[in-house]
Amino acid sequence: MNKLKVGMISFAHGHAFSYLHSLLALPQVELVGIADEVKSRVEEVVGKHGLAYYADYRDLLAQDSLDAVVICSENAFHAQLTIDAAKAKKHVICEKPLGLSVEEMKRMIDACDENGVKLMTAFPCRYIAAVVNAKAAIDRGEIGRILAIKGTNRGSMPGNWFVEPELSGGGALLDHTVHVMDLMNWFTGSKVTEVYAYAATLFHEELKVDDAGMIHVKFENGVFGVLDTSWSRPKSFPTWGDVTMEIVGTKGSISVDSFAQKTELYNDDAGKGQYLFWGDSMDHHMVESFVDALLSGAPAPISGVDGLRSAEVALAGYESVKLGQPVKL
Amino acid sequence: MNKLKVGMISFAHGHAFSYLHSLLALPQVELVGIADEVKSRVEEVVGKHGLAYYADYRDLLAQDSLDAVVICSENAFHAQLTIDAAKAKKHVICEKPLGLSVEEMKRMIDACDENGVKLMTAFPCRYIAAVVNAKAAIDRGEIGRILAIKGTNRGSMPGNWFVEPELSGGGALLDHTVHVMDLMNWFTGSKVTEVYAYAATLFHEELKVDDAGMIHVKFENGVFGVLDTSWSRPKSFPTWGDVTMEIVGTKGSISVDSFAQKTELYNDDAGKGQYLFWGDSMDHHMVESFVDALLSGAPAPISGVDGLRSAEVALAGYESVKLGQPVKL
Amino acid sequence: MNKLKVGMISFAHGHAFSYLHSLLALPQVELVGIADEVKSRVEEVVGKHGLAYYADYRDLLAQDSLDAVVICSENAFHAQLTIDAAKAKKHVICEKPLGLSVEEMKRMIDACDENGVKLMTAFPCRYIAAVVNAKAAIDRGEIGRILAIKGTNRGSMPGNWFVEPELSGGGALLDHTVHVMDLMNWFTGSKVTEVYAYAATLFHEELKVDDAGMIHVKFENGVFGVLDTSWSRPKSFPTWGDVTMEIVGTKGSISVDSFAQKTELYNDDAGKGQYLFWGDSMDHHMVESFVDALLSGAPAPISGVDGLRSAEVALAGYESVKLGQPVKL
Amino acid sequence: MNKLKVGMISFAHGHAFSYLHSLLALPQVELVGIADEVKSRVEEVVGKHGLAYYADYRDLLAQDSLDAVVICSENAFHAQLTIDAAKAKKHVICEKPLGLSVEEMKRMIDACDENGVKLMTAFPCRYIAAVVNAKAAIDRGEIGRILAIKGTNRGSMPGNWFVEPELSGGGALLDHTVHVMDLMNWFTGSKVTEVYAYAATLFHEELKVDDAGMIHVKFENGVFGVLDTSWSRPKSFPTWGDVTMEIVGTKGSISVDSFAQKTELYNDDAGKGQYLFWGDSMDHHMVESFVDALLSGAPAPISGVDGLRSAEVALAGYESVKLGQPVKL
Repeated sequence: MNKLKVGMISFAHGHAFSYLHSLLALPQVELVGIADEVKSRVEEVVGKHGLAYYADYRDLLAQDSLDAVVICSENAFHAQLTIDAAKAKKHVICEKPLGLSVEEMKRMIDACDENGVKLMTAFPCRYIAAVVNAKAAIDRGEIGRILAIKGTNRGSMPGNWFVEPELSGGGALLDHTVHVMDLMNWFTGSKVTEVYAYAATLFHEELKVDDAGMIHVKFENGVFGVLDTSWSRPKSFPTWGDVTMEIVGTKGSISVDSFAQKTELYNDDAGKGQYLFWGDSMDHHMVESFVDALLSGAPAPISGVDGLRSAEVALAGYESVKLGQPVKL
Repeated sequence: MNKLKVGMISFAHGHAFSYLHSLLALPQVELVGIADEVKSRVEEVVGKHGLAYYADYRDLLAQDSLDAVVICSENAFHAQLTIDAAKAKKHVICEKPLGLSVEEMKRMIDACDENGVKLMTAFPCRYIAAVVNAKAAIDRGEIGRILAIKGTNRGSMPGNWFVEPELSGGGALLDHTVHVMDLMNWFTGSKVTEVYAYAATLFHEELKVDDAGMIHVKFENGVFGVLDTSWSRPKSFPTWGDVTMEIVGTKGSISVDSFAQKTELYNDDAGKGQYLFWGDSMDHHMVESFVDALLSGAPAPISGVDGLRSAEVALAGYESVKLGQPVKL
Repeated sequence: MNKLKVGMISFAHGHAFSYLHSLLALPQVELVGIADEVKSRVEEVVGKHGLAYYADYRDLLAQDSLDAVVICSENAFHAQLTIDAAKAKKHVICEKPLGLSVEEMKRMIDACDENGVKLMTAFPCRYIAAVVNAKAAIDRGEIGRILAIKGTNRGSMPGNWFVEPELSGGGALLDHTVHVMDLMNWFTGSKVTEVYAYAATLFHEELKVDDAGMIHVKFENGVFGVLDTSWSRPKSFPTWGDVTMEIVGTKGSISVDSFAQKTELYNDDAGKGQYLFWGDSMDHHMVESFVDALLSGAPAPISGVDGLRSAEVALAGYESVKLGQPVKL
Repeated sequence: MNKLKVGMISFAHGHAFSYLHSLLALPQVELVGIADEVKSRVEEVVGKHGLAYYADYRDLLAQDSLDAVVICSENAFHAQLTIDAAKAKKHVICEKPLGLSVEEMKRMIDACDENGVKLMTAFPCRYIAAVVNAKAAIDRGEIGRILAIKGTNRGSMPGNWFVEPELSGGGALLDHTVHVMDLMNWFTGSKVTEVYAYAATLFHEELKVDDAGMIHVKFENGVFGVLDTSWSRPKSFPTWGDVTMEIVGTKGSISVDSFAQKTELYNDDAGKGQYLFWGDSMDHHMVESFVDALLSGAPAPISGVDGLRSAEVALAGYESVKLGQPVKL
């Protein structure tokens, strides 16, 4: 088999570790190396798996045999890294949010198009079993026409560069809108036309970014959506957060609890209850679908435009918060 | 004991039957009679309990010995009936929503004040055990300062005059906002200053009123609220609807599931699952608190202004729907 | 009003504190004093509430004006204390299990009968709202004739004298069978005729008593019961334990989750999730029903025979464990 | 690829339809034909998929090219069919319970051994995602050493030949013990040594077989198990039944709700709530594992001995019911 040669750029976002393990587990992938200017972040995995290390990502991109890169940098660097990879003729899967402005995301998409490489936005939630099955049930017509969707993505406070506005581009409203908004876009097959949002720093007063938000959207096809997005789970909570959706249709409704596949474990070593998730790995399915699309010549299963469509809602949300008014897209 | 003499005006709203049974069960109450222009609505209970019947409510109000009336008419008649009762020097407990415009609710409140009678808005949800205990926990400081509240009041479609706009004044947004909004007002001790809402006729296309809505509010003290309000429960659902709240505070959060005190009953005679509610009767506690306040000379536990504060949010919601913009109160 | 004069004997069992607060809250009760040979156990409450203290319970029983006593000693002393109280012509409410052998429980019952005083077994679970309502639903015939009952009473390990066999008389099988077995007796209106049980020390290997058991019973009227009884909840669990029942009838079934009236609180001060129980106090209702029965001359709402009927099942359970066979009662 | 040639014998058990669809979906399988003496049971699928039909299963077994058969007859015919298939040198997957006596199951196992064919017992529950993951968590040591297991398999009454004792061999105790007992055997890696059971006809008085049972088992390694097994779900229930387990270990506990991957659908066409299961098909995974084992020469993933170990517990349960005593295995 002709293996896909993949490199990874930056482990600033912790998802990189999960993606790394998926890449290592896929027989159709050859991992070319890891680029990260902060060597300490990747030292252990580089050593353990005997991988090539690059302090400068441009040295990785310069490898002729490299087919594609996985970008998990701080949000602020997504655009530069993606555009540089495109120019080096490498396919890209980029961690969400795709970018920090509509203009920069368009440049990313254009750069990939012009250089004939594929751009995928990393939305692993599309690969959650409950989500996949909700989508199939909707497509089978089991709830009729979608009328409204409510969602939540409530997590714990990530700290680190996520709370530095110049690196993250925003707080919980940005970080936790994009996943579920992408699912809303996917389920409705429509496009958000209006956004009304609220955001504030409620739980961690010391932060320079918001840690709580609520976002109202109207879709072109009349569907109405509400999304509860926050960094509100305390340390004593049994898990990092949730992704839930209630999809109301003309004939029925579907409730999605993405992480329902769990066991409650009470163990005095941990000192608190814990959820042991036992479902399939969404990250692995996502990485595999990216790899398979590249090997088979199929389009990226989730496009750069999908990433734009979702991030622009969060960005319009901040605009709405500033104005105290709904904002048209 | 000096009994309180109470009359009932109109059984258009089905809650009247529940209030009647509470009045009959209270030893400190003497039920003077029932006025309803539609005799068929009350014939059975009048006969069964040997009560006086009045075709014209003015004949009931003319009874000198009468102390107070319970008004359960169509929403459109609340104002006239309350004002007439006040002029006849009778105390009033009036079904929600108190009125159909801010102006008419102010006239109701003024009429009661001027005539020295008490006006209570019928918000039985304040007497639900889960709600009472949530309020107490909040007052004890268990969740710190309230940051945000999410609520739902999703019921089945009531049909009848509730879907005639000239009698009801509105659809689900009006019918199902007022209960939970009153609880939000009560819990926060604050006042709504801005409303952004969405409403549509989604589930029952033949209706002339909305049957689904979502309402965003900001309170003077910074609290943010969202309320999901609809007539969306199908006939196959195990119960008529729900009243739930998630109250998020600086130190913790409280989830209120008002009707959690239930048994799931599966019985093939009914052909579907049913919830048997086993908690205390909120209606009875409310009627008793009204009666006891009148007998002891205390203020009405829930005032006319409380009724106004809640209904004006629903009315502003309709304004917001029309404008597509947030509306200031 | 003629107040009931009540004394308390021993605070070895922690329930005594809850009963004390109920007695203090009841206007129809005068608390005469507390007897406890271990002064340190009661010093604080004696001081705080200005109560008389007796090192020797016989000095309390010698008070002529005393009407009744609440006994919360170690299980091994229930019989002696109850019989002495009876001889002193004092009514008794005694913590469960009533006694450690059928013979000694019969002597307790006889002593109370012969001295014309009432004996009540402290089974507060009969006063849980969910239980009260399940009983009422059963009596209304909502599930037809009872066929089978499953129950659980799984708690945390109490330590202290509860794990000293000469003081407690047994482990989890004794401690946690009696509550739910009493409810099974009450619901069925029948009597256990056969017991098959299993017990072992599974969770805390250092204990000299069992901490886990499973008990099968057959009732005279054909009902079949299973009860899961253990000290198995770890420290990280959000609450001390549970009392649940599934009652299966010919027409339907009822699930009782006694402590469903709870709020999940996640607060980093505690470091783990906690359940805040918001329901009524079963202890208070029980103490009040004892007091009211004495004041009105009614029989004790839960008799000594009820206590015997429940404890003899646990005792037969130990016999069954020893024999590896079902045991007839 | 060398395809596996599979035939099906009898569609008396409805699972045959699900197995058929799996066989049709597997590219590595060629479906040779269906044998069923009751032509009407299979006419539709035979026609729809253009399959060969055999009135007499011996004609199917006579096909030289046939590799394996799937047996879904009434329980009473499992032994004869399996032994005949073995003699014809065909591998067998046989619906559970494997047989109706220990002696006949031993003959089935021996016949397959002597003829060099593999015998698999159809226990699809081993392929449920929640079960697979519980097994993996146990094997990883997450709950330490298993102490006790509680299980339920409560379904709706199947009617048909399932309630004819001469065809089924027993009622709910047999039908619904074997699945979860197999899981208990698998999880503990041990063997039941003692069975104490209760069974009765409680829900459907007209039946000649039991429809409710409770079964206690002790394993060689000290683990204790209880299993609630019945045909007790009414028609109004949202699904056919459940398979749940609570596995208690020295370091933690695991709750398995096998069909938690569901959506609650309320749709007035059905007139009641319904659970839409969205998880993977356990039947498909089981059939595939059988096929893959045969193609690769691996042992059957679930053996005939596994089928015997599970069924003998149910059979001993009936013995225990008759004697009113625990029965040694």
